[in-house]
Amino acid sequence: RAVARMGTELRCQCIATHSKFIPPKSIQDVKLTQSGPHCKNVEVIATLKDGREVCLEPTAPWVQLIIKAILAK
Amino acid sequence: RAVARMGTELRCQCIATHSKFIPPKSIQDVKLTQSGPHCKNVEVIATLKDGREVCLEPTAPWVQLIIKAILAK
Repeated sequence: RAVARMGTELRCQCIATHSKFIPPKSIQDVKLTQSGPHCKNVEVIATLKDGREVCLEPTAPWVQLIIKAILAK
Repeated sequence: RAVARMGTELRCQCIATHSKFIPPKSIQDVKLTQSGPHCKNVEVIATLKDGREVCLEPTAPWVQLIIKAILAK
């Protein structure tokens, strides 16, 4: 189902990015989407444990640290 | 819909990880899922441009490089 959804997402998903730090323990997952014909931006979408989805800025140092922290567990 | 799906995934999604290098340009997106009550492992699932979903090893250096490459674009 996720794949079917991907196939139909033909636009950017993020219109703005969340600028405040989010503690890694409140994050459920993080999806990194490459730029491409559907969207010229790299998009980073975090799903929080409370179900909210927030867009993060791929170049923000704290975003890169959170990703590193998830991978290092 | 993605959120609803998340709420119902109560198990690990990966039973094995792909060990060979995948060129970043064939990757559409990468999802990092934290460990938690549903699964004791950190899971990294890449969706390829051809629609396939593959599980990657979070600690593999090439996986970390691919993630860095996506973020740096």
